[in-house]
Amino acid sequence: MTQATRIILAKRPQGAVTGDCFRTEKANLPALAEGQILVETLYLSLDPYMRPRMTELNSYVPPFELDKPLTGGGISRIVESRNPKFAVGDTVIGAVDWATHTVHDGKGMRKIDPNAAPLPAHLGILGMPGYTAYHGMIRMGQPKPGETVFVSAATGAVGQVAGQLAKLKGAHVVGCAGDDAKCAYAVEELGYDACFNHRKETDYGAVLDRLCPDGINVDFENVGGEIFHAVFARMATFGRIVMCGAISEYQDEKPKPGPDKMFSIIQKSLRIEGFIVSNHAATMDEFVREVGALLRDGRLKSRDSIVDGLEQAPGAFMGLLEGRNFGKLIVKVS
Amino acid sequence: MTQATRIILAKRPQGAVTGDCFRTEKANLPALAEGQILVETLYLSLDPYMRPRMTELNSYVPPFELDKPLTGGGISRIVESRNPKFAVGDTVIGAVDWATHTVHDGKGMRKIDPNAAPLPAHLGILGMPGYTAYHGMIRMGQPKPGETVFVSAATGAVGQVAGQLAKLKGAHVVGCAGDDAKCAYAVEELGYDACFNHRKETDYGAVLDRLCPDGINVDFENVGGEIFHAVFARMATFGRIVMCGAISEYQDEKPKPGPDKMFSIIQKSLRIEGFIVSNHAATMDEFVREVGALLRDGRLKSRDSIVDGLEQAPGAFMGLLEGRNFGKLIVKVS
Repeated sequence: MTQATRIILAKRPQGAVTGDCFRTEKANLPALAEGQILVETLYLSLDPYMRPRMTELNSYVPPFELDKPLTGGGISRIVESRNPKFAVGDTVIGAVDWATHTVHDGKGMRKIDPNAAPLPAHLGILGMPGYTAYHGMIRMGQPKPGETVFVSAATGAVGQVAGQLAKLKGAHVVGCAGDDAKCAYAVEELGYDACFNHRKETDYGAVLDRLCPDGINVDFENVGGEIFHAVFARMATFGRIVMCGAISEYQDEKPKPGPDKMFSIIQKSLRIEGFIVSNHAATMDEFVREVGALLRDGRLKSRDSIVDGLEQAPGAFMGLLEGRNFGKLIVKVS
Repeated sequence: MTQATRIILAKRPQGAVTGDCFRTEKANLPALAEGQILVETLYLSLDPYMRPRMTELNSYVPPFELDKPLTGGGISRIVESRNPKFAVGDTVIGAVDWATHTVHDGKGMRKIDPNAAPLPAHLGILGMPGYTAYHGMIRMGQPKPGETVFVSAATGAVGQVAGQLAKLKGAHVVGCAGDDAKCAYAVEELGYDACFNHRKETDYGAVLDRLCPDGINVDFENVGGEIFHAVFARMATFGRIVMCGAISEYQDEKPKPGPDKMFSIIQKSLRIEGFIVSNHAATMDEFVREVGALLRDGRLKSRDSIVDGLEQAPGAFMGLLEGRNFGKLIVKVS
């Protein structure tokens, strides 16, 4: 019998997520049924989209269940298998519990070659966040040479890739991030033309007027709220707003009314479009080919924050929602 | 020398348009310069987009100038010409002053055959409002059989055409309008499946839940504000919001912050897109062909409100902004 350590949703947050929303427990896992696998988590991905899942709102993925383990994307090793598709020792990527071990039916679980790239890359630039950036920026935003692109959360797991892809298309790329070190990294390492610290600046409109004097053609939106309002007011005619995330809204206790200011969308013939990358899985090959090649050539960089130990997951996740991570946030579990 | 009666923008409105924003004057028009024409206005179109032009905000057309005549689309007759493209007696369509007579350089002025259709139709279903409905509903909204389409301002100049086009595509079409007579007309004459009176209903969410039980796939938006918020909350996955107008925002003295609730756009993979029909003039032929044929076959209807006399224009325009007109609003000038 395998004993798993796992993190349970103890209560749903009201506003900001607090430590008492989580509970760590040890559980004896049942013997495998036919078709099941037992996996040991190596790396667990922590992502902002998990916050809406903690609440009972109707998100694009079902909410987490109360008193059950939270789940997320992870890289795991098969330790026991009653499923002919998987052998003991295989390295796999797919949804697992926030746990040391998970019993799984194998659906959506995909084998990866552990020697092709460092394992965390499969959860970052070569995985869901990288593909999100690629689909949103390249296929939806479609920046043209000389256009101005804005990326909120410029150094986040998705933003760091989105900004670099826009630069490779010849755009003028401006971002914002939550501290000076991130802004310096965005400009010096990722190639952003400018990046402002949204915790220091108080007049977002003024700083955007200075950094984006011709307006903004593509907004790759990760944040929403006050910064987005300032960006929205500065969109250029025929601008595209790619709605990838709205992290500033996730912890609102009482949702704001809206949307308002819709006339601007007419005035400027804007397009605002939201997407969920899992709906585009069928065309992921193109991304793996293109971005894989850019990575090998050194034309794309990525940075991960890896925290050590499953027990760090709740704290790291709360930090993520406050912008305390740098790049892709991953928990090394085993 | 020709004396024109014309209506001048006397002051810019703060909030609701009031009578003292307008002033009627008589003016002696100058002799024509080379290339100019003198036109006598037959019919003048009054449209909601004129409201933002009365304010100094940066609309998609430049604001009206203070102490100058307001302008708008009109059908006119040439009474004098120093432009080889136009002969005395020609009937033309194009921007004119809110005036009995306008001196014009001929740019954007297009000859029409006065026998092809009743003259007001060129300002309504066969003109800008009809083409707006066609481009927005057919090309952008793309309703599919069995989908649910919502049209705010269901019997307005644009809405009445948009709703009928969606019905012809096999959609379930629901609208709202500002009185019971308009709602009855929408259902009995235009073929809407349902239409609610937004001045009587108090809980827009509840009425939409009842009339659109499967959610809304296409919102053809003319209004914005509270009704739009209720529609937005009920959009179905992969829904399309066609931003055509936002009349509820035009008289806001203090613009609301926003847009907010952007996460919903991600959750449901929504697309919101604004447009200005004049950017699509190059493909208007397709519309004239298709909608002209539907009109001849009796498969499309339209209703105009024609008020008699230029001096009625300010009052009729204020009524338009309050939803007091029925169908396309036109002033018979001469």
